[in-house]
Amino acid sequence: MQFPVALERLVYEFSRLPGIGRKTAQRLAFSILRNSHEETKNLADALISVKEQIKYCSICSSFTDMDPCYICQNPMREIDQICVVEHPNNIFPIEKSGVFKGVYHVLMGAISPLDGIGPEQLNIKKLRKRIEDNEIRELIIATNPTVKGEATALFLQQEFAEQIISITRLACGIPAGGDLEYVDDITMTEAFFGRNKFSG
Amino acid sequence: MQFPVALERLVYEFSRLPGIGRKTAQRLAFSILRNSHEETKNLADALISVKEQIKYCSICSSFTDMDPCYICQNPMREIDQICVVEHPNNIFPIEKSGVFKGVYHVLMGAISPLDGIGPEQLNIKKLRKRIEDNEIRELIIATNPTVKGEATALFLQQEFAEQIISITRLACGIPAGGDLEYVDDITMTEAFFGRNKFSG
Repeated sequence: MQFPVALERLVYEFSRLPGIGRKTAQRLAFSILRNSHEETKNLADALISVKEQIKYCSICSSFTDMDPCYICQNPMREIDQICVVEHPNNIFPIEKSGVFKGVYHVLMGAISPLDGIGPEQLNIKKLRKRIEDNEIRELIIATNPTVKGEATALFLQQEFAEQIISITRLACGIPAGGDLEYVDDITMTEAFFGRNKFSG
Repeated sequence: MQFPVALERLVYEFSRLPGIGRKTAQRLAFSILRNSHEETKNLADALISVKEQIKYCSICSSFTDMDPCYICQNPMREIDQICVVEHPNNIFPIEKSGVFKGVYHVLMGAISPLDGIGPEQLNIKKLRKRIEDNEIRELIIATNPTVKGEATALFLQQEFAEQIISITRLACGIPAGGDLEYVDDITMTEAFFGRNKFSG
C-alpha cells in the first residue's frame, strides 16, 4: 500500500534528517497529520526563519543572529585565549559548563584525508589571521577525541607552535560519574597517561 | 548560554514532536543549519502540503488525498467485511501484509474514561450508519491489544452483536520469529488461551 503522495513526501523529507529512519519518519509524519494546522505552520516557519536569520559569525564562524556573535562582542571575554572546536554546536556544551571565559574559533570540520578534507578545506586561514593580528596567550584545542579530531589537533599544534607559547588540548579520561567497568581501552589508556598528582 | 532566538525556536518546535527530546531536537536543528536552504525549504513545504492535501475519507475516516479514499473506491474490495482500527496509521501495516481484502473504519481513538474519551467521542456513529445501510458479513475488531483497545473492542462487540453475526478480534499471541524467552506474561496467557488445533 502506498501512502498518499503528500504524506510519502513528508516521510521522505523527515527520513533525510540524521538519526531518523523510515519508521521514525512515519511516526513523525502521522503526528503532523494529527497536529493542528497552526502547530505545523509553526514548525515550517521555524525551519525557514532559522535558515534566514542564523548566520556565521565573521570572527569565530559560530552560529549567530548578530555579527559578530555575542561571545566575540562581549568585552568580558578574554580575547587572548582561543578555544578551537570542530563545529558550532561544540561551543554550547563548553558554554553550558561555564568553565571557559575566552573566545572560540570554529574549524567547520576536521582533517579527514579519506573524505578529501585537508587543512585547506578547514577554517584555518581565518584562525591564522586572528593569531597574527592579536597576541594570543593560549590556544586550547578542543577538537573531538577521535582519529580526525586528533589529526587536526596535531596539525594545529605544529602549525602554530612558533607563534603561541601555550597550545593545550582538552584532557581525555573517564567521564565524571562514570563507572570504570564500562570505560573503553583507549579512554582508559588516555586516563592513565594523563593521570595527575593529588593536589590536596 | 542561550541559543540564538531562531535556533531556540526550532529546537522547541522539534521537541514537541513525539519521541523527540531536547537533545534530539538540538541535533535535528543543527543538521538543519548545515543543510542547504533548498533542502530545508523542501521539508517546510512538505509539512505545509501534507496539511493542505491530506484529508479524512468521508466513508472510513482514513487519511487520503482523494475522497472517498482509494480503498473505499476500489471495486475489488469486499465492502461487507469491515476492519475497525483505532487510528489511520494502523491501516498501513494491515495493507502491507496483504492479508485483508475488505474495507476499514477508523475510530479516531479508543475508549479511555480517564482521558474523557467515551464511545460518543469516537467515530462510532458513522460505523453504525455503515452497518445499517449495508449488509455486513463480518466486523473485524483490530483495536490495539491494550486496556483501551480491549475496552473499545468489548464495547463494539456488545453494540453490534444483534446486527452482525460474525464479530471477530485479531488474535493475540507470540509474534512470528519471536523468542518465547522474551514474551511477556499477558501475551503468553493470550497465546495459551488462543491456542489452535494442528490443522495439518
